[in-house]
Amino acid sequence: MTILNPARLRIFTSAAMSAALCLTTAGPVFAQISTDVTPDEIIEEAPVNVWRPIPADQLLVMKLAPDANGANRDIIIQLVPQPYSAGWVRNIRKLAHAHWWDGTSVNRVVDNWVTQWGDASEAKPLPATLETVPESDYAAMLKASDEPNAPANCTDSSPQAMCDNYAPVAQIIDGWPLASDGTTRWPVHCYASVGVGRENLPDTGSGAELYAAIGHAPRQLDRNTAVVGRVIEGIEYLSALPRGTGEMGFYAEGQNKVPIVSIRLASDLPATEQPHFEYMASDSDNFARYYASRANRKDSFYRASAGGVDVCNVKVPIRHAPPSGAGKK
Amino acid sequence: MTILNPARLRIFTSAAMSAALCLTTAGPVFAQISTDVTPDEIIEEAPVNVWRPIPADQLLVMKLAPDANGANRDIIIQLVPQPYSAGWVRNIRKLAHAHWWDGTSVNRVVDNWVTQWGDASEAKPLPATLETVPESDYAAMLKASDEPNAPANCTDSSPQAMCDNYAPVAQIIDGWPLASDGTTRWPVHCYASVGVGRENLPDTGSGAELYAAIGHAPRQLDRNTAVVGRVIEGIEYLSALPRGTGEMGFYAEGQNKVPIVSIRLASDLPATEQPHFEYMASDSDNFARYYASRANRKDSFYRASAGGVDVCNVKVPIRHAPPSGAGKK
Repeated sequence: MTILNPARLRIFTSAAMSAALCLTTAGPVFAQISTDVTPDEIIEEAPVNVWRPIPADQLLVMKLAPDANGANRDIIIQLVPQPYSAGWVRNIRKLAHAHWWDGTSVNRVVDNWVTQWGDASEAKPLPATLETVPESDYAAMLKASDEPNAPANCTDSSPQAMCDNYAPVAQIIDGWPLASDGTTRWPVHCYASVGVGRENLPDTGSGAELYAAIGHAPRQLDRNTAVVGRVIEGIEYLSALPRGTGEMGFYAEGQNKVPIVSIRLASDLPATEQPHFEYMASDSDNFARYYASRANRKDSFYRASAGGVDVCNVKVPIRHAPPSGAGKK
Repeated sequence: MTILNPARLRIFTSAAMSAALCLTTAGPVFAQISTDVTPDEIIEEAPVNVWRPIPADQLLVMKLAPDANGANRDIIIQLVPQPYSAGWVRNIRKLAHAHWWDGTSVNRVVDNWVTQWGDASEAKPLPATLETVPESDYAAMLKASDEPNAPANCTDSSPQAMCDNYAPVAQIIDGWPLASDGTTRWPVHCYASVGVGRENLPDTGSGAELYAAIGHAPRQLDRNTAVVGRVIEGIEYLSALPRGTGEMGFYAEGQNKVPIVSIRLASDLPATEQPHFEYMASDSDNFARYYASRANRKDSFYRASAGGVDVCNVKVPIRHAPPSGAGKK
């Protein structure tokens, strides 16, 4: 018995839309787009030219110690591109380059919140070249030309202007979920987002202590802790770990911290060991169709279309890619 | 090093609000409520009379086989009250009463999606008294007096009228996250929601095959599968299970299905074995303050307040209670 069927979508009917229009509300409607394919089919059918390679210096390869059965646990993290969280991302590249995380561990797992890793002793010296990153780096200044068109009453949502409960507007830009307030823009916390742990003062996080979100999007952390990336492969090696039973979900005496063998920037690895990934261009027609299909599930399994989707549930398509330069046409 | 500090909130400042007003948008603002306490403090300080007992016939006690270390894995599920998903909830009570789940198993775990349990053989006879539940039960009809006031431009959100990406309005009523379209109202899928697996036709789910959501709220399932409850204790025994490596995330050959020892309605247990829980009344002033504090995190750790919160991130307070009748004043 299943709860999800991959069969083709039927033509979008207007039931959800009509329902929404019964109220003079801010309810979302996607009246302009119909689709008869599933999100997965749109991904499969997207031509080569809508996929963008993720540069090797944007990828971290994190190796946990093998599991109890001896199986490898490799996690791939994509770092957020400029201009977001730039100081912390620079620090993270330095930490990876210095092999700083090798021999550290996963120390905290809180259900529906975060899995956190770093130096449990809090005594390991940090590279001297790390920056102290100012609070201003939690959001990037917008240029006037970048100011988003906020959706009017949520009736004209698009990847570039989504209704949002946490900001005036949310957006998918260059494959990343972001939010804006008309002055600044910031990367948001979704499932599998990677962020920087810190003490109370906002400039106390170096990037050496990191966490991944393993539950419902903890959007209240936006601009309070720095989103520096997202797990694009192997999140289950972090999300399915035993929960910590100590204070604040840290592993208690008798619980085994999970050893980190190494964290490397992919561009620091030999070419043959570098992973290759690509994402669907979020300014493409294919992505617009994908987005609409995520907002309007309607196929042989889905009966009712929501008519909307939240920025963390869009789930930008990312896939393995041929080595850069190969397979392009 | 931490990423969350429980220290007291400072007075709410209007930074997020001002930012929101820069745009003529649907961005959320909670101008009317300031708070200087954390959500946890509001829970702790709530007087006895704002807590409502959860009836024993609304609680399922689900016992998984002990874990590898011999520790118990007891899960408590609260069933959604009338009028929601009523046919399936009646079936679930019958299945529990018949001890139907004893000896079945958890068979499917998909990261950021669901953990699913039931009869892996799909051959176990169902009680003859189960109803075939019609598609109309996916949402309850509203009386005219129940029609929600949708938030105008998200600027006046409240527990009774929240902006939502998936419906004209979302609400917290009687402790449950719901959505409405002006004609009907339905329970929504949040983290730890429990729903009914089915085949393609909408009346094919009996309630014998259930799932719990273990990632970002899968709201696209709303009104497509029936929300029948939520895990209120022990969700980690479902969310931290190994992910299935078979088709659609079912456990493959060589992966161990997780045995279910029993699932009982609490009201069918001896009085001394019945669990007792209570929830914060969502029409109380305390809940309004709690809701506002969830939307406006601002304390010695939080620097920026979102000014809003989505219906699945409100997280209605639920706690252990004294046995019913005891401790009331």
